Amino acid sequence: MTRPPLARLAAALPEAVPFVGPEAIERRLGKPFRARLGANESGFGPSPRVLAVMAAASHESWKYGDPENHDLRVALADHLGVAADEVMPGEGIDALLGLAARLYIEPGEPVVTSAGGYPTFDFHVAGFGGRQVKVPYEADRENLAGLAEAVRREKARLVYLANPDNPMGTWWTAAEITAFIDALPSDTMLILDEAYGEFAPAGTLPPIHPLRPNVLRMRTFSKAHGMAGVRVGYVVGVREAIAPFNRIRNHFGISRMGQAGAIAALADEAWLADVVARTAAARQRVYAIAAANGFEAIPSATNFVAIDCGRDGAYALGVLEGLVARGVFVRKPASQGLDRCIRVSVGPDEALDIFEAELPAAIAAAQALTAQRA
Amino acid sequence: MTRPPLARLAAALPEAVPFVGPEAIERRLGKPFRARLGANESGFGPSPRVLAVMAAASHESWKYGDPENHDLRVALADHLGVAADEVMPGEGIDALLGLAARLYIEPGEPVVTSAGGYPTFDFHVAGFGGRQVKVPYEADRENLAGLAEAVRREKARLVYLANPDNPMGTWWTAAEITAFIDALPSDTMLILDEAYGEFAPAGTLPPIHPLRPNVLRMRTFSKAHGMAGVRVGYVVGVREAIAPFNRIRNHFGISRMGQAGAIAALADEAWLADVVARTAAARQRVYAIAAANGFEAIPSATNFVAIDCGRDGAYALGVLEGLVARGVFVRKPASQGLDRCIRVSVGPDEALDIFEAELPAAIAAAQALTAQRA
Repeated sequence: MTRPPLARLAAALPEAVPFVGPEAIERRLGKPFRARLGANESGFGPSPRVLAVMAAASHESWKYGDPENHDLRVALADHLGVAADEVMPGEGIDALLGLAARLYIEPGEPVVTSAGGYPTFDFHVAGFGGRQVKVPYEADRENLAGLAEAVRREKARLVYLANPDNPMGTWWTAAEITAFIDALPSDTMLILDEAYGEFAPAGTLPPIHPLRPNVLRMRTFSKAHGMAGVRVGYVVGVREAIAPFNRIRNHFGISRMGQAGAIAALADEAWLADVVARTAAARQRVYAIAAANGFEAIPSATNFVAIDCGRDGAYALGVLEGLVARGVFVRKPASQGLDRCIRVSVGPDEALDIFEAELPAAIAAAQALTAQRA
Repeated sequence: MTRPPLARLAAALPEAVPFVGPEAIERRLGKPFRARLGANESGFGPSPRVLAVMAAASHESWKYGDPENHDLRVALADHLGVAADEVMPGEGIDALLGLAARLYIEPGEPVVTSAGGYPTFDFHVAGFGGRQVKVPYEADRENLAGLAEAVRREKARLVYLANPDNPMGTWWTAAEITAFIDALPSDTMLILDEAYGEFAPAGTLPPIHPLRPNVLRMRTFSKAHGMAGVRVGYVVGVREAIAPFNRIRNHFGISRMGQAGAIAALADEAWLADVVARTAAARQRVYAIAAANGFEAIPSATNFVAIDCGRDGAYALGVLEGLVARGVFVRKPASQGLDRCIRVSVGPDEALDIFEAELPAAIAAAQALTAQRA
């Protein structure tokens, strides 16, 4: 008996997932993490106003959310100074990246990204049959000149860039990003992932205006707004680039609580400013913890810090495994050259206390492992 | 200056949406609906226990939800008597239909559905370039023999069936569905949409076992569980048919509140039984309202009733518009033959009181319109 065959594209894909969640590791270890510092979540949490609004909205959860996300689009448009049809919410940037990949990728055609960049974008590129053209980082930053050169060489119609970057936390200035955009062919679409934009120094995000016809800027409530578990992100662009999302998106995809909560989050600017300030202070603390352990922290414009463990990838992996075994969830870059680092999300003092307390033992364990291998 | 071109499939799609939401109509009318009876939502709401659990989970919303949906999968597996890898949650059946379409549709290849069936499935078929082969309803039911014949004739690898059906509310027995499955080629995948299954009489849903290698059964927390605005559905099938969803799904797509809420909903069997009983009583009341107005209600196994207005589609549309103008949100089938009906979701008495009060005037308005046209 034959089974129903998968479509060609789907049949060619592995069943690999972009990330193993901390819950899966907890199930394997048989105990919960004591400090959750691996997914660039904001341990400072969502605004209390967001929680209140979501609790109120939960009573209306028998209704589908507005498929046009009208009120949220209007709030975002006001916030950004664009028109309501120049912004499109989605179920997190992950979902929007999938939609953008579907809109722009032709099977077999090149898509330019950085080697070691966001795995979920790579997942979507593979998922729609794109041919991945990967440009190595340079000095721990995404290589703007290299990306632009690869786009021209390959005649790529799609290129992805995160600014600030994940997993390294590095960034380019607004002027440098603008010059990069200017260097792109007009028929190449840039996905500019600004998930961590709220944390970045002034002068990192290019101004919203003028909207560029070939740029899709993606932002989220998952990071600075502390709403990763709610699933709301958005994409900003010219209306000709935004409208096509309507052709393929999951129209009822954003929950009613999420729509209401995101509006409340936008309105609570004091909470956001406080989280950004606390994040900056926590970043300094992570730098200091790294230095105290003989490691070099890479300056970050995000809510996480890549810490250079000073040796090879195997050693950094040993440090990570030492932390995980001691109840501290962190992640690390897997890509050659970047893999000498671990990536530590910043968070409240209680979580960083545990990280600080456990790091020396994790380092000792990694050193022992390395000695054993030698 | 050229713009970035869309991929061929995306470029060929219209920007049409499957449904206009009631909120869009409210914005157009400039006032809220007094009775929301158009989207087959459950006005009886989610269980209070679900609300309590979601409120508690909201405080953890700074964390992403478990991308494996482990606890929810285990709860569903226990509930259904299957293994945890034989069920996959998703952001509502809408999202799961999109994933299934992507897994099984080859551009240009036939997909069999009913003419007048679920528009969102048609949206996904078009979205992935499937060639739609539509079989007309017969006596207000999806035509099982016709669907099976179309599958064989077209050598279709994908066929969709809702049981109970939307928009007519009619149903086939479990034995008839099983015979239909037996009649399908083993290399044709059936999507069996059981969104309304909890409302159906005993003997409507085929037993879960044996799982069929060529059937994906889809269910949801949006209808009987009253959680449409939360976005949780699931698909059940053999593990070889479930695993491929991992290749393409939005792994972090279900909110933390949604995962916790769905588990609580499954556990509150008393609430579900009460909603099902109240829905059955409300259905009887809608039948009676229809009869009192000279209309014939089509017996329904769902939480909505298709009411035959006894004339053509233009007349039924007039009745619908009369209701909408009077603050009663209902929808209607658009397809030839079915379009003589309006579709009224059932709900609490307060909502049905308004429907009952406004229907005579809506009918009078439709009659006046018809007379005017004659």
